[in-house]
Amino acid sequence: MTTPEQRRQDAVDALAQQTIELPSWAFGNAGTRFKVFPTAGVPRDPFEKISDAAQVHRHTGAAPRVSLHIPWDLVDDADGGMEKLVAHAADEGVAIGTINSNVFQDDDYKLGSLTNADPAVRRKAVQHHLRCLDVMRATGSKDLKIWLPDGTNYPGQDDIRDRQDRLAESLAEIYAGLDPDMRIVLEYKFFEPYFYTMDIPDWGTSLLHCLALGEQAMVVLDTGHHAPGTNIEFIVAQLLRAGRLGAFDFNSRFYGDDDLMAGAADPFQLFRIMNEIVRGDALRPDSGVNFMLDQCHNVEEKVPGQIRSVMNVQEATAKALLVDREALGEAQRSGDVLAANGLLMDAYSTDVRPLLAEVRESRGLPADPYRAFMASGYLDRVRSERVGGTQAGWGA
Amino acid sequence: MTTPEQRRQDAVDALAQQTIELPSWAFGNAGTRFKVFPTAGVPRDPFEKISDAAQVHRHTGAAPRVSLHIPWDLVDDADGGMEKLVAHAADEGVAIGTINSNVFQDDDYKLGSLTNADPAVRRKAVQHHLRCLDVMRATGSKDLKIWLPDGTNYPGQDDIRDRQDRLAESLAEIYAGLDPDMRIVLEYKFFEPYFYTMDIPDWGTSLLHCLALGEQAMVVLDTGHHAPGTNIEFIVAQLLRAGRLGAFDFNSRFYGDDDLMAGAADPFQLFRIMNEIVRGDALRPDSGVNFMLDQCHNVEEKVPGQIRSVMNVQEATAKALLVDREALGEAQRSGDVLAANGLLMDAYSTDVRPLLAEVRESRGLPADPYRAFMASGYLDRVRSERVGGTQAGWGA
Amino acid sequence: MTTPEQRRQDAVDALAQQTIELPSWAFGNAGTRFKVFPTAGVPRDPFEKISDAAQVHRHTGAAPRVSLHIPWDLVDDADGGMEKLVAHAADEGVAIGTINSNVFQDDDYKLGSLTNADPAVRRKAVQHHLRCLDVMRATGSKDLKIWLPDGTNYPGQDDIRDRQDRLAESLAEIYAGLDPDMRIVLEYKFFEPYFYTMDIPDWGTSLLHCLALGEQAMVVLDTGHHAPGTNIEFIVAQLLRAGRLGAFDFNSRFYGDDDLMAGAADPFQLFRIMNEIVRGDALRPDSGVNFMLDQCHNVEEKVPGQIRSVMNVQEATAKALLVDREALGEAQRSGDVLAANGLLMDAYSTDVRPLLAEVRESRGLPADPYRAFMASGYLDRVRSERVGGTQAGWGA
Amino acid sequence: MTTPEQRRQDAVDALAQQTIELPSWAFGNAGTRFKVFPTAGVPRDPFEKISDAAQVHRHTGAAPRVSLHIPWDLVDDADGGMEKLVAHAADEGVAIGTINSNVFQDDDYKLGSLTNADPAVRRKAVQHHLRCLDVMRATGSKDLKIWLPDGTNYPGQDDIRDRQDRLAESLAEIYAGLDPDMRIVLEYKFFEPYFYTMDIPDWGTSLLHCLALGEQAMVVLDTGHHAPGTNIEFIVAQLLRAGRLGAFDFNSRFYGDDDLMAGAADPFQLFRIMNEIVRGDALRPDSGVNFMLDQCHNVEEKVPGQIRSVMNVQEATAKALLVDREALGEAQRSGDVLAANGLLMDAYSTDVRPLLAEVRESRGLPADPYRAFMASGYLDRVRSERVGGTQAGWGA
Repeated sequence: MTTPEQRRQDAVDALAQQTIELPSWAFGNAGTRFKVFPTAGVPRDPFEKISDAAQVHRHTGAAPRVSLHIPWDLVDDADGGMEKLVAHAADEGVAIGTINSNVFQDDDYKLGSLTNADPAVRRKAVQHHLRCLDVMRATGSKDLKIWLPDGTNYPGQDDIRDRQDRLAESLAEIYAGLDPDMRIVLEYKFFEPYFYTMDIPDWGTSLLHCLALGEQAMVVLDTGHHAPGTNIEFIVAQLLRAGRLGAFDFNSRFYGDDDLMAGAADPFQLFRIMNEIVRGDALRPDSGVNFMLDQCHNVEEKVPGQIRSVMNVQEATAKALLVDREALGEAQRSGDVLAANGLLMDAYSTDVRPLLAEVRESRGLPADPYRAFMASGYLDRVRSERVGGTQAGWGA
Repeated sequence: MTTPEQRRQDAVDALAQQTIELPSWAFGNAGTRFKVFPTAGVPRDPFEKISDAAQVHRHTGAAPRVSLHIPWDLVDDADGGMEKLVAHAADEGVAIGTINSNVFQDDDYKLGSLTNADPAVRRKAVQHHLRCLDVMRATGSKDLKIWLPDGTNYPGQDDIRDRQDRLAESLAEIYAGLDPDMRIVLEYKFFEPYFYTMDIPDWGTSLLHCLALGEQAMVVLDTGHHAPGTNIEFIVAQLLRAGRLGAFDFNSRFYGDDDLMAGAADPFQLFRIMNEIVRGDALRPDSGVNFMLDQCHNVEEKVPGQIRSVMNVQEATAKALLVDREALGEAQRSGDVLAANGLLMDAYSTDVRPLLAEVRESRGLPADPYRAFMASGYLDRVRSERVGGTQAGWGA
Repeated sequence: MTTPEQRRQDAVDALAQQTIELPSWAFGNAGTRFKVFPTAGVPRDPFEKISDAAQVHRHTGAAPRVSLHIPWDLVDDADGGMEKLVAHAADEGVAIGTINSNVFQDDDYKLGSLTNADPAVRRKAVQHHLRCLDVMRATGSKDLKIWLPDGTNYPGQDDIRDRQDRLAESLAEIYAGLDPDMRIVLEYKFFEPYFYTMDIPDWGTSLLHCLALGEQAMVVLDTGHHAPGTNIEFIVAQLLRAGRLGAFDFNSRFYGDDDLMAGAADPFQLFRIMNEIVRGDALRPDSGVNFMLDQCHNVEEKVPGQIRSVMNVQEATAKALLVDREALGEAQRSGDVLAANGLLMDAYSTDVRPLLAEVRESRGLPADPYRAFMASGYLDRVRSERVGGTQAGWGA
Repeated sequence: MTTPEQRRQDAVDALAQQTIELPSWAFGNAGTRFKVFPTAGVPRDPFEKISDAAQVHRHTGAAPRVSLHIPWDLVDDADGGMEKLVAHAADEGVAIGTINSNVFQDDDYKLGSLTNADPAVRRKAVQHHLRCLDVMRATGSKDLKIWLPDGTNYPGQDDIRDRQDRLAESLAEIYAGLDPDMRIVLEYKFFEPYFYTMDIPDWGTSLLHCLALGEQAMVVLDTGHHAPGTNIEFIVAQLLRAGRLGAFDFNSRFYGDDDLMAGAADPFQLFRIMNEIVRGDALRPDSGVNFMLDQCHNVEEKVPGQIRSVMNVQEATAKALLVDREALGEAQRSGDVLAANGLLMDAYSTDVRPLLAEVRESRGLPADPYRAFMASGYLDRVRSERVGGTQAGWGA
């Protein structure tokens, strides 16, 4: 029998080890098709993005990696290439994480990239992914994340099944280029940027392609990429059971792929997701599951928006760690619905902010990273320093 | 190059062969949790249900099989057992089709059947399925359809992953009981009768279990069992590509699992589904895909409701058969979005009722089966004959 | 400036006054169209339902009223009529609250009640409501709640606009029968039990009819009766602004009208709703807003399910009361998105169970009503006493 | 009793008079937040947009008006102002229709325009609308369409009710500036560009504000602006009954506000909507309902995309006009569900393309406007002529 005190101590230990990867693009401007509102002080290049990301790590101690988007975050080879960026990250105390291939902003990809009916476009898209593998070799990254934006807008526009065949073929070419210690993590999305079909709309499709590719292919679950009402924690449990959950893209949503801060829209859902992670023993650092943020800060400040999101994931995790699993299992097996639900809710109802403050302070971190960052003067500094140039956004 | 005339002739041939299986339970009373409204003349036993189903076949020539629900359609062994029912069906010109196992109406199944935490309940549920295999041997059925109603209502109520393990084990026991020419067809459902988790909520889960079981396990797609906005024809294409689409449960919906008449809520969707069937060459009788109705006629008359549904499926199929696939493929490959969409819509806009009338009349059937049935006097007859007894409904 | 201590004290005062009305039908058996699972000890008549409801009040001190459903809760006049029931309630320490008219279980209502195309059926439905007014006079009830189940299943089945005209006319007849101190509270519902149209599907339709009727007609908001993704707290704010929010039916949902325990599916949503209530000063007892539960306990025990639900509403209310509204208003006016959101979340993240325990104990109530009830032996007692008879359910 | 021939003739007459207004912005580039793909030959200024729109009218004879978006379509006063644009439109055979106020692309509107917490921003937004009224006076427009993009992304970000009060005040100021023959048509939208609240999310909110403003304020229904599953034709019927349906924005959707071509995603829904229009006698030119398109052609050619959309609306209208309303009313009143539904479906199943070809040819128009336009050489011509400059898009 574990005691509350043991659970608390186990939670402290696990929380001290938990890491969350940040997306470089969250620090640039973002918006909707209607408008991207600019924000003072926003980075103008990958170096400044990494500096901003490092602020999140500095105050939370929980965000030591930054994902890059290629080509957005490519640094000109004439300048010394990606090595300088890696060195800059190291200077700032963080490392380069997952490499994201961007195949949604080249004019050629209007009707698809890896699934395009035109073999020349498919070849170009495959080549882009192979170049991403080179970036991974240059940056020490091990995961190539493919979010495939491909799809169609109208019934009949293209052949659904042909597109799957082309996708399988394109993915196989990319997979063949992996080093033995590299992985493809393959994301799915319900809709957007296409509105009739998406070529990987659901976890089933992603998983089928991963199974066909081999052991180095895993599914990515973005919490905003599902149909209304979808039980996401069920999918988490299912993919863990199948041994194919490779990574999370955390964010939150009320409607579509809103890309709001993780935990902002439905903190209880985030708790239930983390509860399946803890239940499936996938929180430990060597579990093979990479926990990443993928968000847009359209109206709020970006660095503190990331800090808040990291804190929200930590709080959900802390609550999940506090669940009395022995008592829960007993209630479940005895069919006591109210007792079992009550045990889960007991953990959720707990205010874990003091616990997390303690974890942070024991590691020499501020008890409240958000407040500490806001008091640090960083935002004022970058607002005055970063004048001129072009602010980074969802573009090169 | 096919000519319109050739496509028309191919359509005539294919339509003459198309069959749709009817559910015995559609002829009994149905309703919502609020009320089951009785209808005069409704069958009181499986024999009368089959007689009603035979009326649909008599007028459409397209519905030669009837699915049974066990135990609803069990006939007392003391009376000579299921043999009498098979003989009655033969007399009426139809055959017994798929056997459906019912594990949602026994008090023991409150917290699940094949996934119940209690091994004794699981054993009972497995035994029920093995008895269904006996019914199949007695009736000549080859498909055991498992729609698993199991799930939970509250977070924490039971362990999501444990339930998957129990499900895999239960299914394996049933699968082991199959004769070599039998199949399990495994249905999935988004929600209802449980409201937090369903143990098989999506095609991915159903497929994973089928893959684990073996070649004799196939997925059933019920058109009403998806999240809002789900692209069902995509799933059809995907399951055909994986070689695992075993059967359809046709019906239509505006909101949840409304179980309205097929084609009534979104006839364009039904057309797009049949278009993937034709595209995937799965319409031919030996394709392994069984086309069934699964509906409730809460407010409308049942026999003509089934006739209308069969006609709706036929119309959607006829339109799909008229698509000019060569021109469509060309437009798709050339990236002409409007032309490709237009070619699909040309087929959909066609009024195929004359074509279907011709197909029917050439086979000695009434041009308009609905009108012919309504004029036949059958409803008046059963209303006056079927007095006393207990009307069949969603119960024994 | 309010201090945290003042807010806490204000919360204590407000929580001590908050009352939640219970539905008599929650204590009977409930289920889905697939199955109603029986539960040992369930009431067999309105008297036993009220005794069960009184248990909730006994342990929470917050549930002093019970809603009735007519005709389900009619007591035979020969036995002394409703007076006996009122006296029994008083004996048990509770009172009769809202009267619900049931027009979904008579065979005549298959195609509608107040909107039926047949004037005789409409007249019958209007008469039923006028009889409900008599029940109100007998029981001292002031609110007639009309949840109109009417609708259609198929496009074309009936004329949408004619049904609105008939509805307006029927409602006007009922309204004309109100005593000056009585109200109609008019509920809306997105779908179910009909699947194409509902005659009052949304708050706009309910409000239009209330405006046409007069000052004694108010809108009822059932938290489970909206389209996926609907922002319910917005509707709360809107109806309060219009002065037409008459009552709540609390429950929770993941998919359709799941009727789960309030706060079980999305506790953050319940908090946001109560936050608008507090913001709109509608929590005070004389605000004209009646807070009711409307739930089904399909798989869980009913009395403790109600207790848990009352506690969940109390916790959401407590958190809403703790919001630092001055600081929030300042952050909102200054456009500080993260600060404003953070202030709301601070209140939500607070563990209010100790505060509520204190409120209860100061009133001589158990700190944990759920635990106290479970320890009381009541369930064992009624299980052994209530043998024979017909268990109450969704039927007469 | 009407005969089929009379219904056909009435349909011919009504179709010859039906007009559909085109949005100037549909002819520029459009896309998603991820990418706007450029299209060769796209207009660079409002004059070229109107020339393109005039092509739609030239081939369909049904699109004589063009809506403008201000400031996108403002012409520099130094050049002679909007008068030149009006004259250009007249030369091209079309007129300026509705004026749309754009308050979503100025940096000041990040946290709202008419509802912004900052009075200076609200004043600026009101002033912009008053300038739009001047544009209306210069162009002869009578309708000011307000689609309010305002909303919030996070719970607590702003006060829901305060925003309604500010909105009411801002609208009242704009309304006060209307000439007696002008109208405000007020649009609602479920979500996007904000993801927690929209300040006018539903028809109820729009209607409440219209009722408060006065007789010159009407609701606009955009077919893409509803929650999943919403019955749009019900809202059409409801707004017609209330006398407050001012205009349509037609487009189609599978998921969010996809802005696909009208009739592309759910042609049966478009038919049901037009059926309520015909039923409510709102098709006649003086009904006060303006039928407009509001679409994005992200992947398809724009001028033919508009032509196809106009044709789709015409086909839906033609089918609605063919409904045998006498027989339908009889079936509805007699409660014959299948007959009533069948009568509606009979009209929908009809291939109305020959009828529309006849209407067009009798007016000297091409039988197939899409084909005629594609053969006209217009696209080739503008592709070669419109080189240099900046293509119009969702921006100035």
